[in-house]
Amino acid sequence: MSDRYFIGVDLGGTSMRVAIAGDAGELLAHVKASTYPEAGPESVFERLSALADEARTTAGLKHGAAVAAWGVAFPGPVNHLSGVLTTPPNLPGWHNVPVRDLLTPYAKAPVVVANDAHAAALGEHNYGAGRGVSEMVYMTISTGIGGGVISRDTLLYGADGTAGEVGHIVVDWRGPNCNCGNRGCLEALASGTAIAKAAVERLQTGAKSSLQAFTQPLTAKDVIEAAHQGDPLANEVFHEAARILGAGCVSVVNLVNPRLIVLGGGVSLHAANLLLGPVRERIAQRALELPRGNVNVVLAELGDEAGLYGAIALARQVVT
Amino acid sequence: MSDRYFIGVDLGGTSMRVAIAGDAGELLAHVKASTYPEAGPESVFERLSALADEARTTAGLKHGAAVAAWGVAFPGPVNHLSGVLTTPPNLPGWHNVPVRDLLTPYAKAPVVVANDAHAAALGEHNYGAGRGVSEMVYMTISTGIGGGVISRDTLLYGADGTAGEVGHIVVDWRGPNCNCGNRGCLEALASGTAIAKAAVERLQTGAKSSLQAFTQPLTAKDVIEAAHQGDPLANEVFHEAARILGAGCVSVVNLVNPRLIVLGGGVSLHAANLLLGPVRERIAQRALELPRGNVNVVLAELGDEAGLYGAIALARQVVT
Repeated sequence: MSDRYFIGVDLGGTSMRVAIAGDAGELLAHVKASTYPEAGPESVFERLSALADEARTTAGLKHGAAVAAWGVAFPGPVNHLSGVLTTPPNLPGWHNVPVRDLLTPYAKAPVVVANDAHAAALGEHNYGAGRGVSEMVYMTISTGIGGGVISRDTLLYGADGTAGEVGHIVVDWRGPNCNCGNRGCLEALASGTAIAKAAVERLQTGAKSSLQAFTQPLTAKDVIEAAHQGDPLANEVFHEAARILGAGCVSVVNLVNPRLIVLGGGVSLHAANLLLGPVRERIAQRALELPRGNVNVVLAELGDEAGLYGAIALARQVVT
Repeated sequence: MSDRYFIGVDLGGTSMRVAIAGDAGELLAHVKASTYPEAGPESVFERLSALADEARTTAGLKHGAAVAAWGVAFPGPVNHLSGVLTTPPNLPGWHNVPVRDLLTPYAKAPVVVANDAHAAALGEHNYGAGRGVSEMVYMTISTGIGGGVISRDTLLYGADGTAGEVGHIVVDWRGPNCNCGNRGCLEALASGTAIAKAAVERLQTGAKSSLQAFTQPLTAKDVIEAAHQGDPLANEVFHEAARILGAGCVSVVNLVNPRLIVLGGGVSLHAANLLLGPVRERIAQRALELPRGNVNVVLAELGDEAGLYGAIALARQVVT
């Protein structure tokens, strides 16, 4: 038993990472390469297979060590039951690809697949800020907002494997259009994209701000930087986004009753001091009395490796 | 094995119901009595024990049949792990009562407790509109809005047993005050209470409506009746509530990815033809593409007996 190992893969639109973990889930090796999704799934999986061999060598596995399972995070919606990747925005041409079944001959072991937000939630749950917390919600705030719900130490997949879309809960039913086709989603009002847009709109009304001196078009990173430097407009924009994010978290707390909310993604990590306070305050003031009593909000710990760690956790589901 | 039976109890603020079910969960008897929660838990549980004896007699159980477990639905938040009822609005004086442990000596069997909305969700899942659907959400729309989430055939309890509070997801983060202390909750905008309030507000602006001839204060039932009779104001008020309810359902679909949403409670049952269409339409137009593809919205089937059936399902969790 102790000679078995697991392979975790985080496949992105421009790079892929492979990690090898031992029987107890401990990381043994970690390699990275660029990827060319335009070449199609078979070509990518062949490269992935070679990269896994490289990782195996790096890990210095014992002779006879056997791979127990692969866990693979994909950058798009994957059905956990069918193993089909449907509409990945960053993998051009990969539509309705049966990724699990296509990858299995290369893996020569059971393959478990998930979308990257689910994998990141599992990563933070098993290796990061959510270790030991059975009931948690992971939210990633970057250009968009995504996430995953863990209940009883298990990922909530839902009927089609798409549960946990925290970015598309409605915080203003008459609000601005969201990319998803809905109105007033959390993502339309509190994502990095929404923060940059709100700053631009305020500047267009003639408001003064140090942001006028930044290279255009503005990004959320610019707004965060200006806010850190004390720019009032940037701070106002960010504070409003944080309050809206707090309102979304109140919905999540009331509906899911987690013990912990883990905030990841670029916006959370770069603007932690601007974000955590207002979000915690709003939950403390506005969520229902019982679920708000014991919930905490913390930053993610694994950065952009959350998905890779989560892929290992996925693989370990096969045999634990 | 086949001689064991289960007891389900739905304890309300003014009445209590007891059901006896056989080994396969089939209902054998069903009795009801008034209750006086002011007398305190011990007194109520003593009456409940007598009522259970009556139900046993009615059921005509075989000699030697043994009770396997009790399931009990309470009208307030119950922690599923500790068995403590915290702050029930309709049981005056019952605060932080360890109901499970207090009831066990009377039950002489394991006791499983839940709040009434969770029990109703389990009831509809096991005996009603959600039979055979592993991923479903139950929502009850009456004076308030409550519910329960079922995933993988299991109730989502959350960390404190309060998950599933669909009435307190935010649909308008700057919206009107909710009884819970938050703003813009679904309950504040689409419950029976909110519907009546919206009609009153429109009448106060001088709008004409057949509702002016109704006995005041208006109730949601009045608004539904006027809407059924073709009153334009009542129809507008109801349609807006239905759209907001639809927006809340979109949040639920995106976050939880259920196969089915079951709508119960007085408002749903009396206004089904006004409600189902707009809710289904909003989900079809606004929810994310994958989860909206296979989700349906239907009416609850068990009426005010959903909680009692759910109590039987709770009891059966002990041994199944």
